Amino acid sequence: MLDYRLLAALAAVVETGRFDLAARQLLITQSAVSQRIKQLEERLGQVLLIRDNPPRPTPAGRRLLTHFRQVRLLENELPASLLAEDTEATTSLPIGINADSLATWFWKAVRPLLDEHELLFDLRVADQDVTERLLRQGEVVGCISATSKPPQGCRAGYLGTMVYRLCAAPSFHQRWFPTGLTLSAAARAPVAIYNRQDALHRRLLERSCGRAPRRWQAHYIPSQEAYNTLIVDGYAYGCIPEQQCRPLLDNGALVDLAPHAPEPVRLYWHSWNLRSSLLRELEQTLQRGAKILLLQEEHPEG
Amino acid sequence: MLDYRLLAALAAVVETGRFDLAARQLLITQSAVSQRIKQLEERLGQVLLIRDNPPRPTPAGRRLLTHFRQVRLLENELPASLLAEDTEATTSLPIGINADSLATWFWKAVRPLLDEHELLFDLRVADQDVTERLLRQGEVVGCISATSKPPQGCRAGYLGTMVYRLCAAPSFHQRWFPTGLTLSAAARAPVAIYNRQDALHRRLLERSCGRAPRRWQAHYIPSQEAYNTLIVDGYAYGCIPEQQCRPLLDNGALVDLAPHAPEPVRLYWHSWNLRSSLLRELEQTLQRGAKILLLQEEHPEG
Repeated sequence: MLDYRLLAALAAVVETGRFDLAARQLLITQSAVSQRIKQLEERLGQVLLIRDNPPRPTPAGRRLLTHFRQVRLLENELPASLLAEDTEATTSLPIGINADSLATWFWKAVRPLLDEHELLFDLRVADQDVTERLLRQGEVVGCISATSKPPQGCRAGYLGTMVYRLCAAPSFHQRWFPTGLTLSAAARAPVAIYNRQDALHRRLLERSCGRAPRRWQAHYIPSQEAYNTLIVDGYAYGCIPEQQCRPLLDNGALVDLAPHAPEPVRLYWHSWNLRSSLLRELEQTLQRGAKILLLQEEHPEG
Repeated sequence: MLDYRLLAALAAVVETGRFDLAARQLLITQSAVSQRIKQLEERLGQVLLIRDNPPRPTPAGRRLLTHFRQVRLLENELPASLLAEDTEATTSLPIGINADSLATWFWKAVRPLLDEHELLFDLRVADQDVTERLLRQGEVVGCISATSKPPQGCRAGYLGTMVYRLCAAPSFHQRWFPTGLTLSAAARAPVAIYNRQDALHRRLLERSCGRAPRRWQAHYIPSQEAYNTLIVDGYAYGCIPEQQCRPLLDNGALVDLAPHAPEPVRLYWHSWNLRSSLLRELEQTLQRGAKILLLQEEHPEG
């Protein structure tokens, strides 16, 4: 059987990114942390950790850590009486999530879970198209993803659909889109894009204009707040979730550039296929919340 | 002399993260993109690009790209008459910035620059302690950093100080800190931390309590909005910038757990040491804005 004390040292180094912080977390010395990882590597005959800054697991190390996190999650559900004293740390749930979900509906949906359980969220923000990689690599126990098919060993369920609208301030609309949304106007006008993985506006324009422009005049603004401000202040156009743009469209602070072509992003909850009651409860809580907070389509793709 | 057409292909692949998007941006075929990079590598006798997903530059490739970006920035300042037609793309300024600056003062400070110039912001969000690495690696032309000493080839100037306060909702304060801020209470109470690079709360507690707890009960919430909500809703305590917590402290929605030990973070603007008038103007605009929006200390460290 694996020596989980050694695995815990590996996990602490990877999770804190530093040997001294790992030592502090485990209440042992820094050299004991190094020794434990070395010992584990010698027993398994494989390098598990790349001693870089920050240290990173090798593929073998990553596979072990996935396993370790699963064990830790299951262990946290044992009755308290079965646990040794030093395992009483609160369960921490590593979850992959897209920035828009976190800024709009996620917190409202999961809040009830925090009222019921002592647990901690460990959120990793990434684009909805890439959160799944975190799950596949075992860095998170569940993720919000835009694909309906879960990776091997995981299960998936439809949560709901976020609807994005292509918005601009009225002054921006007049200056850059005097004859409405055309391909050439979309190429010339400054557009706000969250980051380089963000392909929403491209997809929306492909549907509205037949194809997307080859070049963009793009501001890259990886902050939900600053992104929306740039658009509301009239310096760019861009895709804003319905939940955030609706009141601004209704009071005339924003104009919908493509009212007949909102872009739907279907969100799915993917998680490890474990018999963990906490994971199951998280899933149910998210689904209950999403039913109220997201658009529910009858036949989502996939 | 270097063939900048080949360098542009390398830059496009690294910046878009994909060969097909690079091809689209350069208006050439995907195989022409590959050939150009290959040709550049053959001429220089070095591998410049790691063909991974996404493709990444080697150290040599990174060095070349830094140079390419500097040339591009300077070229954009030539009079329009001197430029060939296909170089007329709007100047894009890659800047490294910490999430809190972006969420609070940065946009208000730089707005005047957008009123004067046609330019685009390409913002990379990272912790204030690590944005400088982006500058050193040449991925940004300037960055907001917490260190006063610029890397080689760069200049630095003090912008101002962001002040953080350790806040909690009144109900949370009553439940977890009934006898005030003590080390053991700080270790037991759930704390909101932006991400694993974020050391603000640790530094603040080291100053208030003599040392920081060895273990945390930490929620990791890498979204400014969700982070603040978690604290305001009474599920965690954590560090909030003065600009955001002041109104909530004043109206009683939050309590300051360490009123006599706010944590100052001194911010500096670092940029390449180039004779670029645009870079100089950005610096001046930021400094003017920071004078109003940030605390100005007379003798900042360093």
